[in-house]
Amino acid sequence: MGKNMFRENLLLTNATGKRLYEQYASELPIIDYHCHLLPREIYENKEFEDIGEMWLAHDHYKWRAMRCFGIPEKYITGDASYYEKYLKFAEIFPELIGNPIYIWCALELKRYFDIEEPLNRENAESIYRQTKELIRERHMTPRYCMKVSRVEFVCTTEDPSDTLIYHKKMREEGTEGIRIASAFRPDKAFYAEKPGFAEYMGILSGAAGMPVRSFREMMDALERRLVFFRDMGSMISDNGIEDFAWHDYSQEETEHIFRKAMAGERLDARERDCYRSAFLMEAGRMYHRNGFVMQLHIGTYQGANKSRESGIGVACGFDCTDDSTGIKSVGELLSRLTAEDALPKTILYPLNAAQMETFAVLAAGFCEGPVRGRVQLGAPWWFNDQAHGIRRQFEAAANLYPVALSVGMLTDSRSFLSYPRHELYRRVLCSYLGELVERGEYFSGEEDLARVIRNVCHDNAEEYFGLCLY
Amino acid sequence: MGKNMFRENLLLTNATGKRLYEQYASELPIIDYHCHLLPREIYENKEFEDIGEMWLAHDHYKWRAMRCFGIPEKYITGDASYYEKYLKFAEIFPELIGNPIYIWCALELKRYFDIEEPLNRENAESIYRQTKELIRERHMTPRYCMKVSRVEFVCTTEDPSDTLIYHKKMREEGTEGIRIASAFRPDKAFYAEKPGFAEYMGILSGAAGMPVRSFREMMDALERRLVFFRDMGSMISDNGIEDFAWHDYSQEETEHIFRKAMAGERLDARERDCYRSAFLMEAGRMYHRNGFVMQLHIGTYQGANKSRESGIGVACGFDCTDDSTGIKSVGELLSRLTAEDALPKTILYPLNAAQMETFAVLAAGFCEGPVRGRVQLGAPWWFNDQAHGIRRQFEAAANLYPVALSVGMLTDSRSFLSYPRHELYRRVLCSYLGELVERGEYFSGEEDLARVIRNVCHDNAEEYFGLCLY
Amino acid sequence: MGKNMFRENLLLTNATGKRLYEQYASELPIIDYHCHLLPREIYENKEFEDIGEMWLAHDHYKWRAMRCFGIPEKYITGDASYYEKYLKFAEIFPELIGNPIYIWCALELKRYFDIEEPLNRENAESIYRQTKELIRERHMTPRYCMKVSRVEFVCTTEDPSDTLIYHKKMREEGTEGIRIASAFRPDKAFYAEKPGFAEYMGILSGAAGMPVRSFREMMDALERRLVFFRDMGSMISDNGIEDFAWHDYSQEETEHIFRKAMAGERLDARERDCYRSAFLMEAGRMYHRNGFVMQLHIGTYQGANKSRESGIGVACGFDCTDDSTGIKSVGELLSRLTAEDALPKTILYPLNAAQMETFAVLAAGFCEGPVRGRVQLGAPWWFNDQAHGIRRQFEAAANLYPVALSVGMLTDSRSFLSYPRHELYRRVLCSYLGELVERGEYFSGEEDLARVIRNVCHDNAEEYFGLCLY
Repeated sequence: MGKNMFRENLLLTNATGKRLYEQYASELPIIDYHCHLLPREIYENKEFEDIGEMWLAHDHYKWRAMRCFGIPEKYITGDASYYEKYLKFAEIFPELIGNPIYIWCALELKRYFDIEEPLNRENAESIYRQTKELIRERHMTPRYCMKVSRVEFVCTTEDPSDTLIYHKKMREEGTEGIRIASAFRPDKAFYAEKPGFAEYMGILSGAAGMPVRSFREMMDALERRLVFFRDMGSMISDNGIEDFAWHDYSQEETEHIFRKAMAGERLDARERDCYRSAFLMEAGRMYHRNGFVMQLHIGTYQGANKSRESGIGVACGFDCTDDSTGIKSVGELLSRLTAEDALPKTILYPLNAAQMETFAVLAAGFCEGPVRGRVQLGAPWWFNDQAHGIRRQFEAAANLYPVALSVGMLTDSRSFLSYPRHELYRRVLCSYLGELVERGEYFSGEEDLARVIRNVCHDNAEEYFGLCLY
Repeated sequence: MGKNMFRENLLLTNATGKRLYEQYASELPIIDYHCHLLPREIYENKEFEDIGEMWLAHDHYKWRAMRCFGIPEKYITGDASYYEKYLKFAEIFPELIGNPIYIWCALELKRYFDIEEPLNRENAESIYRQTKELIRERHMTPRYCMKVSRVEFVCTTEDPSDTLIYHKKMREEGTEGIRIASAFRPDKAFYAEKPGFAEYMGILSGAAGMPVRSFREMMDALERRLVFFRDMGSMISDNGIEDFAWHDYSQEETEHIFRKAMAGERLDARERDCYRSAFLMEAGRMYHRNGFVMQLHIGTYQGANKSRESGIGVACGFDCTDDSTGIKSVGELLSRLTAEDALPKTILYPLNAAQMETFAVLAAGFCEGPVRGRVQLGAPWWFNDQAHGIRRQFEAAANLYPVALSVGMLTDSRSFLSYPRHELYRRVLCSYLGELVERGEYFSGEEDLARVIRNVCHDNAEEYFGLCLY
Repeated sequence: MGKNMFRENLLLTNATGKRLYEQYASELPIIDYHCHLLPREIYENKEFEDIGEMWLAHDHYKWRAMRCFGIPEKYITGDASYYEKYLKFAEIFPELIGNPIYIWCALELKRYFDIEEPLNRENAESIYRQTKELIRERHMTPRYCMKVSRVEFVCTTEDPSDTLIYHKKMREEGTEGIRIASAFRPDKAFYAEKPGFAEYMGILSGAAGMPVRSFREMMDALERRLVFFRDMGSMISDNGIEDFAWHDYSQEETEHIFRKAMAGERLDARERDCYRSAFLMEAGRMYHRNGFVMQLHIGTYQGANKSRESGIGVACGFDCTDDSTGIKSVGELLSRLTAEDALPKTILYPLNAAQMETFAVLAAGFCEGPVRGRVQLGAPWWFNDQAHGIRRQFEAAANLYPVALSVGMLTDSRSFLSYPRHELYRRVLCSYLGELVERGEYFSGEEDLARVIRNVCHDNAEEYFGLCLY
């Protein structure tokens, strides 16, 4: 223990897994089909300030951890400098045992800065200086990180009204071989009951260049924007769904609810459910018509800590996990779209890990040719995207849905240093496959194993999203 | 890796477990107290056509997997030949890593055909020919498979109106030492809200030889049939329960709901719940009166993919898992039956694995002498009956309910090749017990371990179902 | 296998874990901040009768297990002697493989009686005699067990109306260096819908020396008693919550519901929910005002087996696990208390293990300085407090909430022999940490590991509960 203890066999618990990782997985390029990077930052490609900014400017995982340790908000989202924040973070680092932040940071120090020492109060300043020098020396920028990590494709996430101005500039000016697209995320239109809905409709109307006076017109406006996104190289949608209870609806009712929402009237639970059901049906049809993949992110408990969210901000670490969405609500949506032959390729991301298996079973029930893995369970999402969560999903869900069809990992991150999450996923995947081999549960040929690894880590995503990267 | 890699220590991850499996488990006969084999096929005992038919005629697990890989329906349930279907299946086989289908097929090839090669596109034809020759050479029939697998007892599943004609013939003509019974499965009477209920009441009335004009008469008719089943050697009932919310009911209400259902009127949620509560109470009393074991299979999401189920068929792979049944609904049923001293031996099979532990706890709360394991958690059901699901149930549920009391595994299968599922279960059991020993968590005598293994794999079921096989 | 097989490396599956346990955990004193010991018994400190009484007088875990094996109630809670009950228990002992009772009993025999043999039918009488002799020889009493186990602090659980007479006597007369406090448990005031509520209000009124004619007065009376508890050295509350659905309420409504409850009128579901919401809000404020830790024990299914509970008794093994409390109900409580800056230190104990992770996520969402771990997930509770449940919680929840902040284990027990549960917890903790190290997931310094272990096993609890033990 002590210094220089970073291990290259990290998470690889068996000899077969080690071999598989080294031979087939470690060098594969990265397709990061879902993240929250800011297009402007990718475009401007400015050198980073310091490791403090890189780690603590946006990362609500770290903020939550720091609050757990009782660190004052000043050093979390407050007006302390990034250096001061970094020092506070360094103090708790050795106590983050068992938490993904520990291993993510360790991988980031190793892969981007060749630092193998475990961060702590004592070496914090020295590591700060080393990293700062390397940032300057290597001119570390967003795209530097991407290139070092062999990133081929990145998909950011934008509102339908977004001009995609930076995406446009990047398409025009080139991005050094990295393909960049934007996922279409119509959440503001989905949450009709939230404040600001009517204002947002004005913005959408402006963006689409058409009046939005009805639910029907709203969907038309969204589709105009979807076509614009498609023309800008997008092929993915992303739908954040806090919770969802299917409710039958009529067109009339939907329009009535839309008018209430526009008038700022309160929607009751039934109206909310009808609206959400109608919206998701229309969105599904629209995605199918336009060849988009539908990603459903289900089960956040947004702003659980209401007063702190109001005081400090949205997406600052006050969101939790909801457990109220029944599987039949999602099933009803998929079933109705299937009945119309309008089910797009769909990825289901349940946040509540206790439902991971029922969702895997559901996904398999809606697969059909000619697509490989038409409906699939997404990579473990948000709080679940750590070694334990990934391993558990392989172990459990592979029994319910062929893991070989998975489109693999994504970062879902706001940080340019987060690509080692793909490395972590690949290590856990190879370790898992190695265990199957060593327990005698798999004994097909080496080339079959190699193909499964290449598919899950890269080729499946390329095919599923129609990227044609080579 | 490559050819001839089938391992005899499959799933046995520790030396103690290996020893235990070989010494105490591998040779035990099989009691298969729940399956979906067709009595006619057991009776007729015809030689199989080919491995294509054996594997792909009924197996919705394989069908789901094939659809996941985007294989056209023609090669799944369509008009392609079994040979063509088999070739399509062989192509995806190496990609079924981590899925129970892989290990089941491997065990079936090994145990019935001595084939150790892993199936793939290249060897598919050769394996087809080899298996076909062996089928002919060995005259492989349903009972051949049973005898090779040391099956002592098989319980099929039939509707109360069934004549049990093939069971009768087999009782009269003998079945080469294999005892065959039928489980009483009154699902068609349980789902009063489903189409065809009134017609079914006519059939039941005919079978029971009495009018069925009321809920009361329906229960009487069912009991007449139960007595007939008992006289034919049956001692087990099987109740499929999609979802269940207990609702207090009166006799009057129940009769009113029955009349509505007979008239083809729509039942609302409350009526459905009342009817189901009343039905399960009456059924429980009836099973207790007649010495039957009550099996409750809880939590299917039947025909989740509605249009495909309509188009292709029931039990063709479009069923999923439901998560809506609260533990208190099942608890209320058990509690009321206990209060009347009318609780039969009961096996609870929750399909939603996230509820496995609450069900184990519930089962223990209703046990009482003189029966060993009066209420118990069933073997992992349906999507859960794979190595991971079995291991998880041992690890978690043994802490909540003595695993030594379990009546063990069942195939729940439509295939005569499915007996290696008992082998798989026994391997996982012995591996689990071996780990307990090796971690120091168990250190009683060898003979105690041997007894536990024999009990779980065979003797508990013999005693619980009153089989007196020796 | 056979005799003398008790292993000192029990549960320690890796070399690092073994070393960590021996060097840093095994000798730490015990802070047992939640148990159900009887203060009178601690005070009177009488020598035990025999191992039969010690094991079978109160232990509903063992009673449930015995019922599962079909042992008649006479030998469980009936009029058989403790010796006879002990013999019946000894008979099933070797079959308790995989159950915590096995390992608890083995540890108890080893740690208090130096017996390493596994109990069974054959040696039962001899072990009975050996233990009886040792009880006499060593004058084994409640406090003897505590001292042998290095217990520093014990917190029993009492009703607000309790006189704490034995706590008072012990404070006056001393308890040989063991600090003893009482947790404030206002369940009888919380369950307004249960029989006996009005009578209990009379008792509370008497204890508080003030009239209790309204909800407001009830809360005032409870606070008077809370202050009394605090003056007697208490700093912990304990709230048993069967299930809980948040419902907005007004002061007026709450008083109306209180009056109905006092009049013995039936409360409907909405009233029950309003009352529980109001009660928990008021209680939370009160705990915060008075510097108490709030423990929320959520999700029991009390008396699931109603008739047996009526016939045999409360807390006799007929309670099960409920799965109906949604995370948002608990979130709403925490959010509202936070908004008033009135959130006390809070420990969440979900009984439904499938919700363990959503609760861990929720806890992190409400942490804030300056407290370390202000809201935290409690140790695995009740049916979950076994090696598998503990290991699982470490593996899963450490990813969601820093495990290093945990206040660690508690016995929750009615038995003076239950302190080895702390040993078991520490073994699993060290084994888990060792695995992280051996998989390369942690590589900070030895002193950091030592600190984490000391904190989780002892120091965190000392600081969190403000014990100042040294």
